[in-house]
Amino acid sequence: MKRSVAVIGAGSWGTALATVLSENHDHVSLWARREELAQEMNEAKENKRYLPGITLPQNIVASASLEHVVQDKTLILLVVPSHAMRDTVRNLAPYLHKDAILVHATKGLEIDSLKRMSEVIKEEVPEAFYKRIAVLSGPSHAEEVGLRAPTTVVVAAEVIEVAEEVQGAFITAHFRVYTNPDVIGVEIGGALKNIIALGAGVSDGLKFGDNAKAALLTRGLAEISRLGIKLGASPLTFTGLAGVGDLVVTATSQHSRNWRAGNMLAEGLSPDEITANMGMVVEGIKTTKAARELSRKLDVEMPITRELHALLFENKVPREAVSDLMGRVRRHETEELALEYFENR
Amino acid sequence: MKRSVAVIGAGSWGTALATVLSENHDHVSLWARREELAQEMNEAKENKRYLPGITLPQNIVASASLEHVVQDKTLILLVVPSHAMRDTVRNLAPYLHKDAILVHATKGLEIDSLKRMSEVIKEEVPEAFYKRIAVLSGPSHAEEVGLRAPTTVVVAAEVIEVAEEVQGAFITAHFRVYTNPDVIGVEIGGALKNIIALGAGVSDGLKFGDNAKAALLTRGLAEISRLGIKLGASPLTFTGLAGVGDLVVTATSQHSRNWRAGNMLAEGLSPDEITANMGMVVEGIKTTKAARELSRKLDVEMPITRELHALLFENKVPREAVSDLMGRVRRHETEELALEYFENR
Repeated sequence: MKRSVAVIGAGSWGTALATVLSENHDHVSLWARREELAQEMNEAKENKRYLPGITLPQNIVASASLEHVVQDKTLILLVVPSHAMRDTVRNLAPYLHKDAILVHATKGLEIDSLKRMSEVIKEEVPEAFYKRIAVLSGPSHAEEVGLRAPTTVVVAAEVIEVAEEVQGAFITAHFRVYTNPDVIGVEIGGALKNIIALGAGVSDGLKFGDNAKAALLTRGLAEISRLGIKLGASPLTFTGLAGVGDLVVTATSQHSRNWRAGNMLAEGLSPDEITANMGMVVEGIKTTKAARELSRKLDVEMPITRELHALLFENKVPREAVSDLMGRVRRHETEELALEYFENR
Repeated sequence: MKRSVAVIGAGSWGTALATVLSENHDHVSLWARREELAQEMNEAKENKRYLPGITLPQNIVASASLEHVVQDKTLILLVVPSHAMRDTVRNLAPYLHKDAILVHATKGLEIDSLKRMSEVIKEEVPEAFYKRIAVLSGPSHAEEVGLRAPTTVVVAAEVIEVAEEVQGAFITAHFRVYTNPDVIGVEIGGALKNIIALGAGVSDGLKFGDNAKAALLTRGLAEISRLGIKLGASPLTFTGLAGVGDLVVTATSQHSRNWRAGNMLAEGLSPDEITANMGMVVEGIKTTKAARELSRKLDVEMPITRELHALLFENKVPREAVSDLMGRVRRHETEELALEYFENR
């Protein structure tokens, strides 16, 4: 069966992914929350607000009607901000085709519940869909995907056939899709790298240099892995595209929204000022809050998240936060490993 | 016992590390191969050739006499190019103080023997020194270390007390040193990341973008880990400073020599032209040769190394090499993991 596709969310990433899907499908329905944006995209064949400069293929048609977009579609791609995921899925659930697969590409956690996006989706759809939920993640700036620059992502689902169907829907010569069975790891990697990207932006904003940033990324990867493993993820996932790959691209590239937000933090702007300034959601700010809560609840050591949280919500001075990170007392790089190894000699 | 220190090699990295050691020691003896460079450094208090713009503290004294520099020193830091390590250690061995620790900071393999630097050192010193050999590695551009930008490195040795002595000699407020027991992993991570940095330079030179580069780094880390584990390294090391940390800083920063060499490769320059152009050793080029041999000998899959080798030594066209890498047929990100997981359902 060739699946018919709908993309829910016309931000940068949703629009870019719609252009990918348009290569493999006759028709792509793209939902925009605002009627005005949907109309503009249909007329100008461009998403001027969120993905300027990329011409939208003729077979992408935008609409602000969830019912219209979702009806009869057997592959639903959800790309709304994390805080809007629950309501959006609840609103579209009545229109779901009985065979539909739901794949999301949202990198964040639900703040109040601390839930992953696939958990939120599950809670809003009938049980029949539980095994047909997938996540797409990896190092992928929307701007580059729109320009058809070579990109590699992973799709994770509990059932391999579902992951493979999604893979088949997205894969093109320049958009490579790999499957991965670790839904938890892929979601946690994607959500939490935004925190580290924020931190990298702060470090760069303070002119700490590339050596410091590399150390921050390394430790960031370690704390993301620690939390992920505690939640049931595979450690291997964090060494892959949804882990280190996405972390690197987000924390070292000028395209990254979270990195830019970190830069503004270093200049002394408040979270509210930054959000106003960017005119877009900065997932890393919300995720810092959620991850801080999770790390407390699960008793996982996450020093970078802790310092970022202090910086964002507890009036800590940026330079102090980064210095406290650098100066942490720790003798061995891999303490458990070191002890075990030396004690066996 | 406060150790007296000698630094063997006055390239960028040797000179930068001498400035670090000068903070903890009354006197640092710095050996330069050329008498002329030693004199110039002593007079100008600057290494204009390899670390311009950094004032050398008064307590660093350069000399071209190995005997003079090594004699009576109890900590010898070796920072010569990998191809010069064997001869240098052979030449200085007769002058070694009986209690000397030898630590090296050279990122490369010996091409003909395919040996790691600590193995080469062992073969050129009396057995009494075998347990007193260490390696220092991590994300650390020499230029930034010279400017006292915050930097984090690891020191690995078979015996923890040796690693801790080296740690004590180097650690300052802005140069953090962690110990790690995995000599093999730290050496392999440091040597092989230069290959991936070369590849990143090629990818960037061809304007493939940040998404492609992140995918390259992710796969690069995987192939470095595969080889390292086969050689006896701990997988954990590659997720640390000497693995992902060093890889990121080398492959994403404008300071990196190997990245710049990759850029020239993308423009069609030959390895010889690049070496002439840089006026410095490009470790990544030699390491590609050695790693290619190792991967064949040990039957480890290293696709990036293979393509780089084809590009450097078999006249392959850059764009073809990178395209072949991107287009590799592989369905699952972590194939073994995926199979195991899905088969258990």
